[in-house]
Amino acid sequence: MHRVANFYAGPSTLPLDVLEEIQKDLLDFNNTGMSIIEISHRSKAFSKMITETEQDFREILNIPDDYAVLFMQGGASIQFPLIPMNLKKDGGKFTYINTGAWSKKAIKEAQIQGETEVLASSEDKNFSYIPDLKNLQIPENAAYLHITSNNTIAGTQYHAFPETGAVPLVADMSSDFLSRPIDVSRFGIIYAGAQKNVGPSGLGIVIIRKDLAEQVEETVPTFFRYKTHVDKNSLFNTPNSFAIYAVGLVVKRLKKLGGLEAMAKINEEKAKILYDVIDNSSLYQGVADKNSRSLMNVTFTLSNSDLEAKLLEESIANDLIGIKGHRSVGGFRASIYNAQSIENVKKLAVFLQNFENKNK
Amino acid sequence: MHRVANFYAGPSTLPLDVLEEIQKDLLDFNNTGMSIIEISHRSKAFSKMITETEQDFREILNIPDDYAVLFMQGGASIQFPLIPMNLKKDGGKFTYINTGAWSKKAIKEAQIQGETEVLASSEDKNFSYIPDLKNLQIPENAAYLHITSNNTIAGTQYHAFPETGAVPLVADMSSDFLSRPIDVSRFGIIYAGAQKNVGPSGLGIVIIRKDLAEQVEETVPTFFRYKTHVDKNSLFNTPNSFAIYAVGLVVKRLKKLGGLEAMAKINEEKAKILYDVIDNSSLYQGVADKNSRSLMNVTFTLSNSDLEAKLLEESIANDLIGIKGHRSVGGFRASIYNAQSIENVKKLAVFLQNFENKNK
Repeated sequence: MHRVANFYAGPSTLPLDVLEEIQKDLLDFNNTGMSIIEISHRSKAFSKMITETEQDFREILNIPDDYAVLFMQGGASIQFPLIPMNLKKDGGKFTYINTGAWSKKAIKEAQIQGETEVLASSEDKNFSYIPDLKNLQIPENAAYLHITSNNTIAGTQYHAFPETGAVPLVADMSSDFLSRPIDVSRFGIIYAGAQKNVGPSGLGIVIIRKDLAEQVEETVPTFFRYKTHVDKNSLFNTPNSFAIYAVGLVVKRLKKLGGLEAMAKINEEKAKILYDVIDNSSLYQGVADKNSRSLMNVTFTLSNSDLEAKLLEESIANDLIGIKGHRSVGGFRASIYNAQSIENVKKLAVFLQNFENKNK
Repeated sequence: MHRVANFYAGPSTLPLDVLEEIQKDLLDFNNTGMSIIEISHRSKAFSKMITETEQDFREILNIPDDYAVLFMQGGASIQFPLIPMNLKKDGGKFTYINTGAWSKKAIKEAQIQGETEVLASSEDKNFSYIPDLKNLQIPENAAYLHITSNNTIAGTQYHAFPETGAVPLVADMSSDFLSRPIDVSRFGIIYAGAQKNVGPSGLGIVIIRKDLAEQVEETVPTFFRYKTHVDKNSLFNTPNSFAIYAVGLVVKRLKKLGGLEAMAKINEEKAKILYDVIDNSSLYQGVADKNSRSLMNVTFTLSNSDLEAKLLEESIANDLIGIKGHRSVGGFRASIYNAQSIENVKKLAVFLQNFENKNK
């Protein structure tokens, strides 16, 4: 079997043992004589699977009882309009921190729906840092404050979250969800597209404080109300069965590895390997400010940009796939989500060092 | 390997050879060294796959060039609000034919958004027939007329479609999509959740006359505009990669079988086997009117309802799974979508005949 080292920003590499389990069970899920993608979402076998998956999420993230866990369809892009649609309140502004392209997309959808204010931004330096939010002034009546916890393009990540008092903190954690422990009780809503740290694409995981789902107006279509999905335990309609099943396997594996604290240590170790190469190099230059660096997406440019095409070509020849940087930043990006093995990261590090030595 | 005869109404059985191909390629898609669920939706390998899948849909359905084919997330339930949201026009009513629970869900979402009129209904007889629409009067300025082409619960199906003149005909074909040839040019929008005839859940296929995507108001969130997905060839955001890939395999298989005319013949043959059992029985009674019968969902009750529990129990013991009827109709339902083999249908027919003989 041919497998490469896959550094795509998403969809991205998945744990090999999870893929092998999916493969093994693909024609016969749990002795049902049917594939997981062939069984009714109202069947006992499916019900058991989705209930266990929710419980595993609750356990691993230590989710309080007054929060619901939703398995929705559509990734983060559908959540962008759903957030203002559901949390709208009279006279309450939608407030945002702008840390990159994904924040901007979220902001655009809020602006369509009502008065929106960007309270802080790092756009002045092409989003290479997370703004200091210690003295952030949030309008008292704000409907919520929205942040993007990890920014895949510039490679930045929040290492502390803002205090928002009574204003619900809403976080798009698509690209660092389950990569480290978080205190769920500090958030009103956490949401994440699954296709980076957690599983296949086509699934959005939403953790919502239940009272926030209650205030939605009746003019909002049923499918777009969080309340609908809370009330029906994510089975208002046929869900993305395959993705929920795969995510369930990933979370079980995380539990076996020792949970999110263990995962965070591994992620720190992996990121350090690459950042050390960058910091000890005269060819590679980190894109993100050091204290805003992401443990998920390591971004760098070359001091000699003439070498870019050569580096990319040689990386592919070495089965190191997907390290081309986003066009808005240029250079390179290695995405090293949970499922990225330390072996692959070391392989990339050695490759980068050798490339620099050969091209001095 | 243990495989049962799966008669679930959806998600439902898939072709065994398609499942085997998915299984074989799960760790290495097209020699990329990555799984289809691990590769970027912007990669060449993915782009080739989705482009081919769209072309295969166009070929098999003979889709005119002025129609777009969209791969969206969320099944039919998200389309219910999107239809009125996108096709709204000043003074134009949303009009519907009500042929069952799925029609009613669609109607409910239209009512939230504007003036809605039900032009015909079969609710008077618990949806056991398709209303005669030959002399249907559609308000001239209607935004559209919406029908549900196949009704899984009562087991009815349109065998001819209404003439709507200049009013766009919108059809939810979730449960009979690709089961027979259709003249796409007669429709404004055709949409279908994939999880019955076409593939795994979590995917909605939308065929839309492009001009209908243009009129959407700017107050509609970007993700909810068909125009967004038309303009971006279904890649506005990360799509449900796995489902698109699986659907692609199913459509390629359909082409090999001889396309939709060949499929329609097989479906007629399969349905006849079961309806013949019902029509020649004093125990089994068809739910749907004969001229409205569905070729996809065969519904029946027992003249002696005391035998229901016994029949269900024995069916399961014989590896005939999922034939319990919907609670709103009672009795039994065998879903025999495209992927249901004629062998399984015969097995069920023989089982039903034997059961009747033993319980005379």
